[in-house]
Amino acid sequence: MSNPTKENIADWFKGLQDSICERLEILDGKSGFVEDQWERSEGGGGRTRTIKDGDLIEKGGVNFSAVFGPTPSKILEALKLEKSDFFATGVSIVLHPKNPWVPIIHMNVRYFEMDTGTWWFGGGIDLTPHIVVTERARMFHKSLKEVCDKHNESYYKDFKRWADDYFYLGHRKETRGVGGIFFDRLTEKEQITKLDRWEFVKEVGLSFVPIYTDAVAKLRDKEWSEEDKLWQGLRRGRYVEFNLVHDKGTKFGLDTDGRTESILVSMPPHAQWHYDFRPENQTHHKTQSLLKKGIDWINY
Amino acid sequence: MSNPTKENIADWFKGLQDSICERLEILDGKSGFVEDQWERSEGGGGRTRTIKDGDLIEKGGVNFSAVFGPTPSKILEALKLEKSDFFATGVSIVLHPKNPWVPIIHMNVRYFEMDTGTWWFGGGIDLTPHIVVTERARMFHKSLKEVCDKHNESYYKDFKRWADDYFYLGHRKETRGVGGIFFDRLTEKEQITKLDRWEFVKEVGLSFVPIYTDAVAKLRDKEWSEEDKLWQGLRRGRYVEFNLVHDKGTKFGLDTDGRTESILVSMPPHAQWHYDFRPENQTHHKTQSLLKKGIDWINY
Repeated sequence: MSNPTKENIADWFKGLQDSICERLEILDGKSGFVEDQWERSEGGGGRTRTIKDGDLIEKGGVNFSAVFGPTPSKILEALKLEKSDFFATGVSIVLHPKNPWVPIIHMNVRYFEMDTGTWWFGGGIDLTPHIVVTERARMFHKSLKEVCDKHNESYYKDFKRWADDYFYLGHRKETRGVGGIFFDRLTEKEQITKLDRWEFVKEVGLSFVPIYTDAVAKLRDKEWSEEDKLWQGLRRGRYVEFNLVHDKGTKFGLDTDGRTESILVSMPPHAQWHYDFRPENQTHHKTQSLLKKGIDWINY
Repeated sequence: MSNPTKENIADWFKGLQDSICERLEILDGKSGFVEDQWERSEGGGGRTRTIKDGDLIEKGGVNFSAVFGPTPSKILEALKLEKSDFFATGVSIVLHPKNPWVPIIHMNVRYFEMDTGTWWFGGGIDLTPHIVVTERARMFHKSLKEVCDKHNESYYKDFKRWADDYFYLGHRKETRGVGGIFFDRLTEKEQITKLDRWEFVKEVGLSFVPIYTDAVAKLRDKEWSEEDKLWQGLRRGRYVEFNLVHDKGTKFGLDTDGRTESILVSMPPHAQWHYDFRPENQTHHKTQSLLKKGIDWINY
């Protein structure tokens, strides 16, 4: 097999969006995706697909985009790149479930290339339970490790730590959820070719639906209390804080005049803030205590 | 009268917090403030007072703080200041009303001084109606102009424009609300002494309760629909976006390890996000159309 071109990658991502949306509609069983196609005046565009008021998913988005043109100066500065045209494509997903027992999930696969020849892949999958069910966190990490181990034995360890560091709310001194894997600027290195990186990124994309299906199984039908619903609202508040204060993708998107509605499709349907809330419910209290870096979920 | 010392200013601000809380409790008529005193390990502290589930105010905070110590390096860089100790004191208020017809209000008065001798005042009052009632926006600006005109005939014009520019969501291409006045780094200048600045800042602080009382009169008992309540949730979402993405005070506070619960007391009790929402209700649609800079509210 030869190295993929940027067109190959964008086409494959587009197909991934199709297949994920199709399978998520089946999983949800009630609601369907609505598509908005959009164009970017400087070059390229995307397909934003949103779903709401489903049996499983209260609000979610599965975005595909492939954009190109002169690299915005803010990106050149932040990434310390020379002035040149760029091409960026990716699939990005955030699903907010109705049931507080079901975790929020986020997945992203992306490719970036400059006319100068510089290129890299990025992405990851991470889980944000409103209520941590430790056995499920273990299963989730085990699946990610399997995906990683097929490609490189250091990937899981490295990308798990990267996720712990990335999905961290410094101002709350807590992680966003139970983490997962995160990677960025993966390029050629020693024995690892561009094709190797691409095969790995494809595997991450393809693993999303089975991993999410496992993560929601049974939990989606679990009964919840008013207290759980409030806790979900407060945890969603933290999700908003992470995305608006810390998330680099969101910040770049908003800074560089990206399509706001597509970027903020990650926002939850509702969020709540109470002053200095301290959970009395034991399950919620335990969740709070597990929002920290460095937990070895596989052996938890 | 002689120039106020930093202790004079902090004492006066503390008294302002007391008097505002007392009068807001009377205005609300149902709920009361709860106080949290806190200390900052590097020096100083504050009194965070919060109110919830009132007849008028669903969630609100009236903060006082007076902090000092070595200036955090992020502040030195951002404000281009020489390394030195600082002293900062202020009162900051955000009130989220229950009724969607009642506007969100924000007020801040603050004083900053460096051991090098540099000092300035900052502050302002601005209004964020969920539903703009143009006559009320006019009254609000008229009151602010009266406050300003007692001190300097250029203040209202300058500080109104400053508020338009500051309370602007670039990523939404809309203002946060109908603006008000905003000023920062007010120091001595030509004929204006430190005492003049201080008298103005005090006047702004003292004007808050009467202005808010006018702004809520009658509106607090106005009936609302489910559609209004949803619209309030979405507008509150924009308030969250402004505070977390754009507001410099929030950003500095979170960046410099400030007390997170006191900083984020500005968050609404609930907020909502719908993908690409477009208001069909005429009143809401009109509100959206009025969220722009440069409206001459006094002659609107």
